[in-house]
Amino acid sequence: MIIIKIGGSVITDKNSKYPKLNKKNLKRVCKEICEVMPFPLILVHGAGSFGHPIVKKYDIIANPNKKGFCIVHYWVKKLNLYVCRYLLKYGMDVVSIQPSSCIIASDGFIDYFNVKIIERYLEKEIVPVLYGDIVLDKSLEFSVISGDQIVRYLGEKMKANKIILATDVDGVYDKDPKKHKDAKLIKRIKPEDKIKLKDFKEDVTGGMAGKVSELLKLAEKGVKSEIVNAKKKNRLKKLLLGKRVRRTIIG
Amino acid sequence: MIIIKIGGSVITDKNSKYPKLNKKNLKRVCKEICEVMPFPLILVHGAGSFGHPIVKKYDIIANPNKKGFCIVHYWVKKLNLYVCRYLLKYGMDVVSIQPSSCIIASDGFIDYFNVKIIERYLEKEIVPVLYGDIVLDKSLEFSVISGDQIVRYLGEKMKANKIILATDVDGVYDKDPKKHKDAKLIKRIKPEDKIKLKDFKEDVTGGMAGKVSELLKLAEKGVKSEIVNAKKKNRLKKLLLGKRVRRTIIG
Repeated sequence: MIIIKIGGSVITDKNSKYPKLNKKNLKRVCKEICEVMPFPLILVHGAGSFGHPIVKKYDIIANPNKKGFCIVHYWVKKLNLYVCRYLLKYGMDVVSIQPSSCIIASDGFIDYFNVKIIERYLEKEIVPVLYGDIVLDKSLEFSVISGDQIVRYLGEKMKANKIILATDVDGVYDKDPKKHKDAKLIKRIKPEDKIKLKDFKEDVTGGMAGKVSELLKLAEKGVKSEIVNAKKKNRLKKLLLGKRVRRTIIG
Repeated sequence: MIIIKIGGSVITDKNSKYPKLNKKNLKRVCKEICEVMPFPLILVHGAGSFGHPIVKKYDIIANPNKKGFCIVHYWVKKLNLYVCRYLLKYGMDVVSIQPSSCIIASDGFIDYFNVKIIERYLEKEIVPVLYGDIVLDKSLEFSVISGDQIVRYLGEKMKANKIILATDVDGVYDKDPKKHKDAKLIKRIKPEDKIKLKDFKEDVTGGMAGKVSELLKLAEKGVKSEIVNAKKKNRLKKLLLGKRVRRTIIG
């Protein structure tokens, strides 16, 4: 089973201060996945500008408040509807799974999540589509559960064969490629390379250090990940077809 | 705790062959509820033309198929997003609860439904908004779970004080008011009046006989219901304010 995480930075205009779709990328990425139609598959997408600016505006992290909760919830759901729309359009049978309907967190981490329904959809050859959402939290009031956290949780719980992070960068660099012209793409990171993580502090692209740290934990359990640039046409598609593309393998 | 069911016939153009919103009604009904702001409250809405024509087109009842399932799922979710949009606009803190994310049916009836998350949202004074949806079924492939069935289930399980069905008719008539000019509105039906149900066979407005039968079962358990015409301006609002309006009380 493959889990593909589509980055919010790919399908939305990440720098926008209000929810703004990158429709061109969204359509292309959905099309690329549907042209290969891998299965069993779980899709997870990030929130991009449908989440982050609103979380910030309502100061949800420092001051969990229900007005902000409800507005974020609305917008990420709206983004999910767009994603499902194009997947359906290009022929994939998808069902959206709303995290805030079925997840309860504790201290910012998934605590209760009955994945039985997801398993049933997969048995029926329907692709569940999850997304970064804001959910109830036992200890905090609410907490933001990122797409990355959902990927990590499902990857382990459902014993995924492979995880693909479709992002807006080619992979993991040894230094921040936006600052350093001599930054080099790391082709492979193994669990025993943990020490190298220190170097990622300079890498500010989408919390890459955090992503790698999570993916290394999965790698230790035998789940391999690949980070690929889905902003580049056909790169995700080629990867899904088993072709060699520029990327970072973790595991 | 009150449960309000907003009929699909009120907020959509029920006779349309494709999904068509009745935006004017939707906005007005949301505004009326938000002007009173009853709490604790659970909202449930029907699918109207966002569900029925698609269920029919894909022949889902006779021939459960995943393509039809996914398309229906998409459209009812879209309707739910509209409903949440206007409730938020008029100041209500709402969270949508997607039935297909948390319900599994058996033979067409709700079998698994963990209402813990709904209780938590209510504790936080957030109004859960559910809707008629298509869900996994243990015995059938999929089954349509109507808003009415959700109302009945939650009414009993969560011990509602009152249920209000906001429909497109004034209440329950002794005969079909569209056929018989002398049809009279029945102001109250008590559980011991069960026998009268026979008369409803002529009443074709939105499966009223089925609704009444379900509501009588709830009445036997002490949950009173009221059927009111939400197409008439301010009638729902007046009812929520405790004023006397034309309606049928069941229980």
